[in-house]
Amino acid sequence: MPSISSRGKNVPMSPFRKLVPFADKAKDAGKHVYHLNIGQPDIETPLYALQKVRENQLKVLAYSPAVGQLSYRKKLVEYYRKFEIALTPDDIIVTTGGSEAIQFAMLSCFDIGDEVIVPEPFYANYNGFAQIGSLNIRPITCDIEDGFALPPVEAFEAVITDKTRGIFITNPNNPTGCFYSREDLTQLGRLCKAYDLFLFVDEVYREFCYDGKEFYSALRLEGLEDHVIVVDSISKRYSACGARIGALVTRNQGVLEAATRYAKLRLSPPGLAQILAEATLDMDDSYLGQVTEAYDRRRQVVYNRLQAMPGVVSYLPGGAFYCFAKFPLRSAEHFCQWLLEFFEHEGATVMLSPGEGFYATPGLGRDEVRIAYILNEQDLEKAMDCLEVALETYKAVEAAMEATPAS
Amino acid sequence: MPSISSRGKNVPMSPFRKLVPFADKAKDAGKHVYHLNIGQPDIETPLYALQKVRENQLKVLAYSPAVGQLSYRKKLVEYYRKFEIALTPDDIIVTTGGSEAIQFAMLSCFDIGDEVIVPEPFYANYNGFAQIGSLNIRPITCDIEDGFALPPVEAFEAVITDKTRGIFITNPNNPTGCFYSREDLTQLGRLCKAYDLFLFVDEVYREFCYDGKEFYSALRLEGLEDHVIVVDSISKRYSACGARIGALVTRNQGVLEAATRYAKLRLSPPGLAQILAEATLDMDDSYLGQVTEAYDRRRQVVYNRLQAMPGVVSYLPGGAFYCFAKFPLRSAEHFCQWLLEFFEHEGATVMLSPGEGFYATPGLGRDEVRIAYILNEQDLEKAMDCLEVALETYKAVEAAMEATPAS
Repeated sequence: MPSISSRGKNVPMSPFRKLVPFADKAKDAGKHVYHLNIGQPDIETPLYALQKVRENQLKVLAYSPAVGQLSYRKKLVEYYRKFEIALTPDDIIVTTGGSEAIQFAMLSCFDIGDEVIVPEPFYANYNGFAQIGSLNIRPITCDIEDGFALPPVEAFEAVITDKTRGIFITNPNNPTGCFYSREDLTQLGRLCKAYDLFLFVDEVYREFCYDGKEFYSALRLEGLEDHVIVVDSISKRYSACGARIGALVTRNQGVLEAATRYAKLRLSPPGLAQILAEATLDMDDSYLGQVTEAYDRRRQVVYNRLQAMPGVVSYLPGGAFYCFAKFPLRSAEHFCQWLLEFFEHEGATVMLSPGEGFYATPGLGRDEVRIAYILNEQDLEKAMDCLEVALETYKAVEAAMEATPAS
Repeated sequence: MPSISSRGKNVPMSPFRKLVPFADKAKDAGKHVYHLNIGQPDIETPLYALQKVRENQLKVLAYSPAVGQLSYRKKLVEYYRKFEIALTPDDIIVTTGGSEAIQFAMLSCFDIGDEVIVPEPFYANYNGFAQIGSLNIRPITCDIEDGFALPPVEAFEAVITDKTRGIFITNPNNPTGCFYSREDLTQLGRLCKAYDLFLFVDEVYREFCYDGKEFYSALRLEGLEDHVIVVDSISKRYSACGARIGALVTRNQGVLEAATRYAKLRLSPPGLAQILAEATLDMDDSYLGQVTEAYDRRRQVVYNRLQAMPGVVSYLPGGAFYCFAKFPLRSAEHFCQWLLEFFEHEGATVMLSPGEGFYATPGLGRDEVRIAYILNEQDLEKAMDCLEVALETYKAVEAAMEATPAS
């Protein structure tokens, strides 16, 4: 039998992947599982945009231009203008989800063995896209004690080598919910300018900023026009994860040309979904306003409940719909599995993402989890009830495990 | 300014890409351009399937499973059964177009520097996917004089090295329209078995076989269950190129596991398009029957017209909707550009793909073109009128060029 490739055997997997069979088993056994492990919100996709898909009068569902429909890109220019970002349609390549934008960016800017600096914990799938492009991630560790604030630029500067081609951040952050300010971006921008590095910013949670924080896009950094590459997506913004429409945005002509070639290779982004995406831009801001308010309330629920749990370390996240929490236990991975396998509270349990998989540095995040607050407040309260009882119950489990010599 | 990657600068481009600005200019000048350069048919997407998209009652357009909706994969099992292919839904990974299936297959089976044998001329985008995976294509040259029939297995055997991991063919073939028989596949299968190679077959034109030829899928080869990987797509079958729904089909568990990991990385294939794809499988066979008959008539038009053109070498293609033709001139690329830039017949001209870009061996195909017969018969006749007059007119152009000393 021909054997598969080494890379095929070693594709990095999501931090909660090992837990999926346990979740399936729990559900098969009739247990309700509150899924706080994945960024799939329960928020409805805008009816207006779905309606436009229903009203389509297509006769031939043909390839769209490789870089996406011009009409859509023109409307995106208007959308970005609301964030004081000045663009032309040529600065935008429509991609198959944000995932493809990450891939195009990495292939266009990195050769085999090149390095990218990423603050950790980070979105775990960056590992897989880096593997495809054979580039190496150099992590900069952030700390839960200060809400995973961006480390000082000196920390970034210290790991720059002659292989370093860029810095990659997510703002607001998945998995930490950390919000990076204009000042943070300006500092990173200055460093990128000094060392001739690309600054990649995944801004797919742009709308979801709280406590009056104003989002500042890296595309606004002056003098960094050739350095900044933004990854975007409608998945979270319009709760349309299944549409698979994202965008790569940059003013760097070389990157645009290279990414366009990669785009041509796969012919076109999804056609039906571009109808939906374009329609979202004909809507007023009320949908996004309501959605942001809903996430804000959910954020408060999770924060308040975590604060009341003894020994739990967390913080009030500034954006996105995630937070990290540190639990008073040894192995969050074991705890998360135990939650699904053995725990039940009022017929339910909760699924979380163990924190370790979001770190590149071995050994970090073992007592941490990521919580995605993507359920309505009532369900979130119930999920937090489960978590509270579970943490209390688990103490005895852990004590018993430690008392039992490993066989 | 940070510079882009070497690979980003060198992404292989489509054979007709340089001609696009000339086509645009011709159209701007009011010339009608018959596009026979690209596989975007004018055939209507099945109304029944489009209607199912219109009737969708989705509230949240959520991620589908990474490997595609189970309901769709179950129906695909029935579809493949019509071709005497026995599968389970677990043997099928739904991809974002056939393009992504090619990419998943290459990443799962090849490491950097590994080699794949491909008969040339071949679908030029294989070059780009090979570049992403850093694998090398070893071409086996086919000959227009025998309709690009598959060379004897000895020719394949002769280029096998310790880096060779597989053979990749397209059946029926794009760009040649060549149909590979059960005997062809059996021979290749035997070779793959003997040398422990994967046999990749891109079968996206499976339905379009003519003259009573019966399609034989590589998935039917006995004893080759762990070797065969099939790339599929609904783009051509249902004239739904813009849907971006394909599939990777194999019974090799290792490949399925690796490809599933790559699938999870990009989260899910397009959701709306899966509704369309699934609906096509609830239709009876009349749509595909009519479409195949339409292509068959178009095929005859192109073949008959080419046969009547002095000095042109072509053949009756056995499948797909492409053929190659050899012209009595030095540079098909110059001729194709001249067609757009300077030629006009009754207000129109024709766009073809220069043949050279479909070969990996330097220097081959310079007097050849690919013709995609994706227009209706009336338009095809007019396009062939253009071509006939153009070939006649071009003689003097070429003679004049040769008489003029290069400045």
